[in-house]
Amino acid sequence: MQYPEPIAKLIESFMKLPGIGQKTAARLAFFCLDMQEEEVVHFANALISTKRDLHYCSKCGNITESDPCIICSDETRLRSTVLVVENPRDIMSMEKIREYNGLYHVLHGVLSPMEGTGPEDLNIPNLIKRLQEEEINEVIIATNATAEGEATAMYLSRLIKPAGIKVTRLAYGLAVGSDIEYADEMTLFRAIDGRREL
Amino acid sequence: MQYPEPIAKLIESFMKLPGIGQKTAARLAFFCLDMQEEEVVHFANALISTKRDLHYCSKCGNITESDPCIICSDETRLRSTVLVVENPRDIMSMEKIREYNGLYHVLHGVLSPMEGTGPEDLNIPNLIKRLQEEEINEVIIATNATAEGEATAMYLSRLIKPAGIKVTRLAYGLAVGSDIEYADEMTLFRAIDGRREL
Repeated sequence: MQYPEPIAKLIESFMKLPGIGQKTAARLAFFCLDMQEEEVVHFANALISTKRDLHYCSKCGNITESDPCIICSDETRLRSTVLVVENPRDIMSMEKIREYNGLYHVLHGVLSPMEGTGPEDLNIPNLIKRLQEEEINEVIIATNATAEGEATAMYLSRLIKPAGIKVTRLAYGLAVGSDIEYADEMTLFRAIDGRREL
Repeated sequence: MQYPEPIAKLIESFMKLPGIGQKTAARLAFFCLDMQEEEVVHFANALISTKRDLHYCSKCGNITESDPCIICSDETRLRSTVLVVENPRDIMSMEKIREYNGLYHVLHGVLSPMEGTGPEDLNIPNLIKRLQEEEINEVIIATNATAEGEATAMYLSRLIKPAGIKVTRLAYGLAVGSDIEYADEMTLFRAIDGRREL
């Protein structure tokens, strides 16, 4: 026996999402069946609208309804600094702390020889073009603290530094509120290495 | 800074699903942004179609496009036995083993005083009506092996038995392939209690 076609298709769609297996997909699909029709329609419209109305900013690669995006077209922001992130969600995390007031550049991934992702698969050519055309004097590399994020940071640094532009990287160290006892060795090593005078 | 409206709405919709928090919802929404438009449209249509085209069978409460459902209208099935489950997904699990050939009845939940779910909130009045109108001589209670499932089974048993109908419950015991060492005490107790002669 099979599920009726509509719900079988919905389960299939949920299963295409990352981290969702068959059991979870079935649970979610049955949950949708019990939702208010209005909410289901909202959900469906949001899906379509997200796909159709949102684009990547032609300058920085952030998601946006208008082009260039609101950050790129904000005249109050410092235009001499570019913070490079892996994906648009990282911009949101940065904006939440209200500390950084420069521009952004989204790579849409990291270099990963294992997955066959090279520089040409990322938003790197566009970054180089911006560095040539705009008056940028610092590039802050904020890729994740993973092996791939680190390799991508090193690659970008080697690519950009020869042009005389300052390249910086977010600090490594203990997370605020964390215990030294539970910190991994690499983190402790970096925390000692990056120690600062009080 | 906020996410652009379409994706903010999509994140909100994902967050209404069970077990999906804000971070996961954002990850899923951004994943949809990168999906093929065709796939997103399929997803949206499946949502709408699941909500609009599927109903609960007026006899047994299973989900169905037609009414009564294909199981209730299948003349080859044994019509004297009804297996009572908590939700339509349980029917699917039962059907997979191809062992049971009777009818079903879906409660759409379990009795739960904590959550204020009483007999009138479940598909129980309909079950009683079926027992009165149809020629049923065995009711197999297949609610989950949880406290609520057990309480619901006891309640149904007391309700149905006086009418002279045989009421049975799925067997408790060791899961096939499991180690006695790791079985919990209640399961072991039930396994000894329900031991069978070889």
